[in-house]
Amino acid sequence: MIITLTTDFGVSDSYVAQMKGAILAINAQAQVIDVTHFIPPQNVRRAAAVLQEIAGVFPAASIHVAVVDPGVGTSRALLAAETANQKFLAPDNGTLGPLFRQFPPTKVHRLTAHRFWRAPVSATFHGRDILAPVAAYWSRGTDIAEFGPAVDASKIIGLSLPQVQRVGAMLVGEIESADSFGNLITNVNVSDLEGVNRTLLSVSIATRQIVGICDCYADHPTGTLLALVGSSGRLEIAVHGGSAEKVLGAEPGQEVRIQRLG
Amino acid sequence: MIITLTTDFGVSDSYVAQMKGAILAINAQAQVIDVTHFIPPQNVRRAAAVLQEIAGVFPAASIHVAVVDPGVGTSRALLAAETANQKFLAPDNGTLGPLFRQFPPTKVHRLTAHRFWRAPVSATFHGRDILAPVAAYWSRGTDIAEFGPAVDASKIIGLSLPQVQRVGAMLVGEIESADSFGNLITNVNVSDLEGVNRTLLSVSIATRQIVGICDCYADHPTGTLLALVGSSGRLEIAVHGGSAEKVLGAEPGQEVRIQRLG
Amino acid sequence: MIITLTTDFGVSDSYVAQMKGAILAINAQAQVIDVTHFIPPQNVRRAAAVLQEIAGVFPAASIHVAVVDPGVGTSRALLAAETANQKFLAPDNGTLGPLFRQFPPTKVHRLTAHRFWRAPVSATFHGRDILAPVAAYWSRGTDIAEFGPAVDASKIIGLSLPQVQRVGAMLVGEIESADSFGNLITNVNVSDLEGVNRTLLSVSIATRQIVGICDCYADHPTGTLLALVGSSGRLEIAVHGGSAEKVLGAEPGQEVRIQRLG
Repeated sequence: MIITLTTDFGVSDSYVAQMKGAILAINAQAQVIDVTHFIPPQNVRRAAAVLQEIAGVFPAASIHVAVVDPGVGTSRALLAAETANQKFLAPDNGTLGPLFRQFPPTKVHRLTAHRFWRAPVSATFHGRDILAPVAAYWSRGTDIAEFGPAVDASKIIGLSLPQVQRVGAMLVGEIESADSFGNLITNVNVSDLEGVNRTLLSVSIATRQIVGICDCYADHPTGTLLALVGSSGRLEIAVHGGSAEKVLGAEPGQEVRIQRLG
Repeated sequence: MIITLTTDFGVSDSYVAQMKGAILAINAQAQVIDVTHFIPPQNVRRAAAVLQEIAGVFPAASIHVAVVDPGVGTSRALLAAETANQKFLAPDNGTLGPLFRQFPPTKVHRLTAHRFWRAPVSATFHGRDILAPVAAYWSRGTDIAEFGPAVDASKIIGLSLPQVQRVGAMLVGEIESADSFGNLITNVNVSDLEGVNRTLLSVSIATRQIVGICDCYADHPTGTLLALVGSSGRLEIAVHGGSAEKVLGAEPGQEVRIQRLG
Repeated sequence: MIITLTTDFGVSDSYVAQMKGAILAINAQAQVIDVTHFIPPQNVRRAAAVLQEIAGVFPAASIHVAVVDPGVGTSRALLAAETANQKFLAPDNGTLGPLFRQFPPTKVHRLTAHRFWRAPVSATFHGRDILAPVAAYWSRGTDIAEFGPAVDASKIIGLSLPQVQRVGAMLVGEIESADSFGNLITNVNVSDLEGVNRTLLSVSIATRQIVGICDCYADHPTGTLLALVGSSGRLEIAVHGGSAEKVLGAEPGQEVRIQRLG
């Protein structure tokens, strides 16, 4: 069984390895896969974007553990959730909300059953002491209902993130996150653009206008600002061979407008 | 069988992958887990601290390979060692000594049996040519005694690191290492603090005094200097949302005093 | 079955994990090993050097996937190739050429059979959508001929990289790449130096002359410029405890001359 890890721990310390050790101590057959440990510190929104990027790629029943947890040691809930074919473990702090708009959860439970946790539980490292062992038991077949009581999925933090709006013939979305190359990933999905001739669209951000949505980076000379449908199926704004984030000074939340040329 | 790797190689080159290839060429079933490859170059003390952090977390019979080896190519010994339930491979340069104070070795052997090594052995990469293949054979069940002669555990380098002292009612320890967040990890163990009301203690380092040992980072506002029992069971000095190492200009070896308030 | 990954993606984003997910979705038994994701962006030459470093270390039938692909989305070919005991997947952009001088390919095929690809194929991420799934099917036993038509190995890009020259008693090679420590790795092989007393050789680069080829870094005081046969079996130029790349301002392609002293 596959267990993936997404954290803001970096890889200089032994923290990630301690999580792996805690998993393997319970299920030595688990295959633990690093997604990234370079979520910017405490940047829950970026963790949420990464979970969306991987949720459609991994085999059915993969367990994804995300630990970006500014509230560790407070009373924030830790959640286990199932979607149609994936499983997730994360604090209830906005990490899971955006994902659930795209992949609605079928079950959400709060982790309360101490018998699946390491003892003693440290105050500062619930990734190792709660999430890792629960992931390991889950990968061995324990039912989600054993980990704690079901909770109301509609109350999970972060479900109300902005949606793409249609204003007349115009589509208004926003930048959701930037990857480490400085590509700006929007909340506009390829499905929002269906049935339209993409070369006849303009994409506007701040004071810049991009003409046409192209197929790939190599379509344009180095340095060109361009819009494309990225590998995650989202509209992205990129600079060929450069960083759109730096060139535009853009940030998550910034508005992006898509309309017909002319 | 699990084999972990702790090195100062970084991850930009193929050196770590070459170690993994050398392991898998002998035992394709081995599960190789990265602990960290960002030990500061040649910082044996940090490697020793990392081994202590992971030794209590991994399943029984895990093999931990540590390669921070300024003396590669000289006559320094390479060691295989067993503790109650873990196995270790490292140069005899201080990497294993501190660990053995906490987890006494039951067997220590010097690696001399060339038949378990890659041929030819390069002068600069004993991690790939000696430690990796020995780890692989060990994970397949070879007995430690086949790798070379037993050595006297009391002569291993680094066994005589400073212990926590009791001076009257005061406990005197020291900073052992810093993690990449700048948290200062001391040699004071949670067991040294047993039976004491932690909120009535003061922790002094340099000219600063911290009142009380708290439960977690979130107890205090951002920027607060605080003392807590960290996830490794050690007393740590931290700055909430910052780096205690930078704020205090602290270094390994610096004295830490713990006493009752009043 | 082992599948290794060599890319210029870094590890901050989820791109590497998406490749792993795409592999595991087809072959959950695959063991995916990271070689490095820190090839300098679009530096095909460094990717080629890394493949050469690992090709002799991994067990037979390992599949090595290299994705340094400035031409993604253009009509450049993607190749599958077999050498005597290893397998490779990469764009035809110079990544495989240098390797094949040392390990001649027995079969080379161009990837054209869409039924082994993810659908739809994105324009920007052929690593995930073509190379990863083909690697996974290959690791499950699909024959290379099913992936597409055989191609003429002599037409693969990068087969004509400079060879070591003999000019009278002098050997003239060049710097092929630098590792992240600043060690300069040349195209001069240990076999080029056979039967010679290495302590009686001089190695010249730019205006500097190094006397003798030594056995290991520890032979010399810190800061010494030295020449040695590195762990890859190549002549390397290094600074003990420093960076030869920085000290010499050296670059790939720079000439290195080896001759007898006196």
